[in-house]
Amino acid sequence: MAFKGGYAGKLLYVDLTKEKIEKVPLDEDLAKKYIGGAGLAAKLLFDLIPKGIDPLSPSNVLGFFVGPLTGTLFPQASRYTVAAKNPLTNAWGEAHSAGFWGPELKLAGYDGIIFTGKAKRPVYLYIDNEEVEICSAKGLWGMKTFEAMDKVTQIHNDPQIESVAIGPAGENLVRFAGIFTRNGRVAARSGMGLVMGSKNLKLIAVRGTKGLDVAQPDEYLDSVKAWYDKVLSHPYTEGRVKYGTTELIDMMQSIGRLPTYNMRQGVFDEWENISCDTYRDKYLLRPRADYACIQRCGRFVSVATGPYKCLGKGPEYECLSALGSRCGNSNLASIIYIHHLCDEYGMDSIGTGSVIAWAMECYEKGILTEEDTGGLAFNWGDHELIVRLVEMITKREGIGDLLAEGSYRAAKRLGRGMEYVMHVKGQDIASQEPRAQKSMGLAAATASRGADHLYAFPVLDEGEVFAKEIRQWYGTEYLPEIGERLSPKNKGFMVFHNENYSVLIESLGVCKYGTMVPPALYYEDIIRAIEVTMGWKFSERELKKVGERIVNLNRLFNVREGITRKDDSLPERLTKEPAPLGIPKGQVVELDTMLDEYYQYRGWDKKTGRPTKKKLKELGLEEEAKKL
Amino acid sequence: MAFKGGYAGKLLYVDLTKEKIEKVPLDEDLAKKYIGGAGLAAKLLFDLIPKGIDPLSPSNVLGFFVGPLTGTLFPQASRYTVAAKNPLTNAWGEAHSAGFWGPELKLAGYDGIIFTGKAKRPVYLYIDNEEVEICSAKGLWGMKTFEAMDKVTQIHNDPQIESVAIGPAGENLVRFAGIFTRNGRVAARSGMGLVMGSKNLKLIAVRGTKGLDVAQPDEYLDSVKAWYDKVLSHPYTEGRVKYGTTELIDMMQSIGRLPTYNMRQGVFDEWENISCDTYRDKYLLRPRADYACIQRCGRFVSVATGPYKCLGKGPEYECLSALGSRCGNSNLASIIYIHHLCDEYGMDSIGTGSVIAWAMECYEKGILTEEDTGGLAFNWGDHELIVRLVEMITKREGIGDLLAEGSYRAAKRLGRGMEYVMHVKGQDIASQEPRAQKSMGLAAATASRGADHLYAFPVLDEGEVFAKEIRQWYGTEYLPEIGERLSPKNKGFMVFHNENYSVLIESLGVCKYGTMVPPALYYEDIIRAIEVTMGWKFSERELKKVGERIVNLNRLFNVREGITRKDDSLPERLTKEPAPLGIPKGQVVELDTMLDEYYQYRGWDKKTGRPTKKKLKELGLEEEAKKL
Repeated sequence: MAFKGGYAGKLLYVDLTKEKIEKVPLDEDLAKKYIGGAGLAAKLLFDLIPKGIDPLSPSNVLGFFVGPLTGTLFPQASRYTVAAKNPLTNAWGEAHSAGFWGPELKLAGYDGIIFTGKAKRPVYLYIDNEEVEICSAKGLWGMKTFEAMDKVTQIHNDPQIESVAIGPAGENLVRFAGIFTRNGRVAARSGMGLVMGSKNLKLIAVRGTKGLDVAQPDEYLDSVKAWYDKVLSHPYTEGRVKYGTTELIDMMQSIGRLPTYNMRQGVFDEWENISCDTYRDKYLLRPRADYACIQRCGRFVSVATGPYKCLGKGPEYECLSALGSRCGNSNLASIIYIHHLCDEYGMDSIGTGSVIAWAMECYEKGILTEEDTGGLAFNWGDHELIVRLVEMITKREGIGDLLAEGSYRAAKRLGRGMEYVMHVKGQDIASQEPRAQKSMGLAAATASRGADHLYAFPVLDEGEVFAKEIRQWYGTEYLPEIGERLSPKNKGFMVFHNENYSVLIESLGVCKYGTMVPPALYYEDIIRAIEVTMGWKFSERELKKVGERIVNLNRLFNVREGITRKDDSLPERLTKEPAPLGIPKGQVVELDTMLDEYYQYRGWDKKTGRPTKKKLKELGLEEEAKKL
Repeated sequence: MAFKGGYAGKLLYVDLTKEKIEKVPLDEDLAKKYIGGAGLAAKLLFDLIPKGIDPLSPSNVLGFFVGPLTGTLFPQASRYTVAAKNPLTNAWGEAHSAGFWGPELKLAGYDGIIFTGKAKRPVYLYIDNEEVEICSAKGLWGMKTFEAMDKVTQIHNDPQIESVAIGPAGENLVRFAGIFTRNGRVAARSGMGLVMGSKNLKLIAVRGTKGLDVAQPDEYLDSVKAWYDKVLSHPYTEGRVKYGTTELIDMMQSIGRLPTYNMRQGVFDEWENISCDTYRDKYLLRPRADYACIQRCGRFVSVATGPYKCLGKGPEYECLSALGSRCGNSNLASIIYIHHLCDEYGMDSIGTGSVIAWAMECYEKGILTEEDTGGLAFNWGDHELIVRLVEMITKREGIGDLLAEGSYRAAKRLGRGMEYVMHVKGQDIASQEPRAQKSMGLAAATASRGADHLYAFPVLDEGEVFAKEIRQWYGTEYLPEIGERLSPKNKGFMVFHNENYSVLIESLGVCKYGTMVPPALYYEDIIRAIEVTMGWKFSERELKKVGERIVNLNRLFNVREGITRKDDSLPERLTKEPAPLGIPKGQVVELDTMLDEYYQYRGWDKKTGRPTKKKLKELGLEEEAKKL
């Protein structure tokens, strides 16, 4: 193998149509240019996915990639990226997940798996180090996610196997189906579970027992110690262990950024029923960590009595809002139970909550009637209805068949209610009310995979407190109002900068918690990690260029699919309908202003949103530009 | 909590009769005197178990203990000790196991669990950090080991739960039932699974997510690095990864120490069929590691075709000999399959192979007839018979009911064949033919839990090569012939010394591989580990005293139960019948000579084998001595 240093050094190509498996060395120049994870996905899938294909056809390519830090001792180095053409947006699609599967794949000797074609029968892939086998999933098809993963550990008689799987939702082509790990982590967005289902691929089981080399073992261990100290001593860590992301319910409510009643408003009267302390006091058993995680934002919960009795992984902020405030539902036990169902059936709880919230608003407005719903009343907060709908969506029964298409396609098929679809490019907006934080609106509009809170995660909101940090973070002089949530000023720079950093983090295979939100570890630590692990010396400037390259390549994919500035949009509710309540009262998102600034920083044409030749040349993307 | 440094600081007392759970702080002085694991077991169970009780009565006490290094990063710090009065010997009983359960128990906050009484119904214990619950095992009783452990992860919906369990053999009171971990590690000897079964306790499920403090974090990390380097660079490590303990088949055969045909001889004509290369070439999938293990002697195998098709944990040396050469069976696929059955039904493969080998010899000699066996012919090497017997033993069907008692009790009940029982104190001798290695004979005779190859593990056999090491190891001038396998000289010192060291290792919670066989890490590293982890400064002399204290307390337990010198015996086959073949041809074990020397070093009375008052005073065991 040419090089090591964190990399396994090999990619696995699986042609599902021909049931052919090929192992290909990972090219070192490619790794230097794109790092791994999201970066490798951007490059390899740009080259492999033909323009204009149906995302559900065998021509789509589904790639799983870990980063060079995945499986190392870098804090929270647990992550993998899965990517394909997005069946929600018909443009770029990707999702990310923690868990233990990514590290296991690396230890089995692979930096990625690329699936092409479509299996003639339900299959799963079984990887045991060098041994790779396409197995019949006859006995697994139809099973719930965790049930199928448990079954596979029994088939191969090894409790240490790590798997990712789809549930019945992915099999039944629910548009917002996700991909799940054994401990319930989800690659949730972009309908990646649907693409997996469309290929008749139920599950990927991995057992890896190889070692992992780093370039400078002594310096590496010293650095690991320093990184852990930094993360553990960071003031945010304690709260993360205690509450995980559930504390965002309280915070979002206080600043009017908690999407409620289908994002009509950013405050929820009944928020105290779903607050982080209610959650902790009534249902939390303990925090739960992923591989190498010392922040432990995962939750493990039980509802001990009543109709919503259940036990397992607990919902986090996005889910609490999607299945809670967005649907006007403050019954926390029901949210925990519904989240549990979403996990078992295998679907994105953001997508699930969004389409139900949309339907509830349409019902309220008389756009969706009992004639459409088969007699069901879609009243705000009706958690019994939501439970029922989750099953109906999974099985595509009755109104569930419409809702399984996701809010955007449901409105299109229905021919009504598009004004209430809270989406960008066909993908639902996460629970970050942008009228209360303008940067989040811009980020949702520009993210390459459609509405997305994680592609930039521009949440730096305490202007005064962080003024010093802003200068330090953003490598520039203080930009006025950048830290002010309600001002559109300098948000273009913020999103530009954060996108570049964020795709780099997802390329390395580590978690944004601790590196970004907030950065207990930042560029200097990333540079150090690359040096001691991979043996490469990158400057901060060079690393930022890597991030920029990946964002631009994602954009080129989208340009090739016809995406232009007009698609970098937000629903009119957010740009024209003033926020009715709380701190953001009267606010709308000034998207156009922010977009102009963003394109300026990006070096993209302001009319078309297309990267300029100059920018592409600067980033070494001339060859890719020719493929448009 | 008073102290930390590797300790969880708490013991869990579970009264199964009253279903009462109590948490008691671990006393620091106690920990300093007995360290943990086997040492704590020796002290706490000496105090708790009344003299003369039936090991299968509710009065027996079953304790599980981890050591202060268990769950730390010390190489192979995976181990726990389980102890109780031994239902095979009616004296001291203990067993040890690797896996992931011990570390999980530590991370849940416990240094040990002590079960008293007997549950009124089948139960299992579920520990989730502070939450401890006695649950009904109604749905688990009757299940095979791994099946029950998988079921529990589903009941509590957490794939990260680690369990230990008994199988149907333990439930049906098979005398040599063991206790199994999820990855197939076994606390096999001393019938500990039987004691667990007699208490109606099916399984102990643990989830621990607490941290673990060490006294000197910086020095600890530096030391960890140094220890790993030492183990990894040791010349034995490569072979261990490649072959695990299976390479002993070849080595034992070459020196005439491979018990064959019920230990009649130490060479096996058909050994090449079960050699380490045959095993590796035909069945090995990969090595398998336990917690923090870098030697990876665990095997993962598959038999892909034929009647013995199976997949899972593979047999190691002792099992290959017990179910192979001792029964004259060279069908390796069958051994793998039978081993798999033993794991699933939950019994010690040494005990299983021994009783079957005994029955085969009795059958050959006409002592066991087809009238006794219900028409079954017990021919050497009949693997189909062995498969059948494993099921019959588990279910106590037909002749299986007799064999389920173990060879010693079976001969007693039958009233014939005691001369062919290869046991000490009622427990079967492991596969270490003592006429080819005299030290092993002495070790089997003196070990506190009955015949045992691991209580001393005196296998230093290359006198010339290791002459220097002997001086270094044994802290004395070179002792003549100590390294010569066939000489009885100085074996008393060797066993004395090794027993003291070995119980110390099992008290710390680490594996003997790497610390003892051979010692890549030795006293100096143990002293360092105790300092950086626990924060205590021990001299080598003091540590040796700790070991001696534990051995003497084990002996006091046995003395109280009536054990004397006459019980430190070997079967006459080994002491009077000259070895017929190979290098040891003509040899017998000169046990009396060696015992005299051993008692001399021990400071035990040569007539009674009882520790002298002087020795007990020196070791601070006066109070215990009063309880005799």
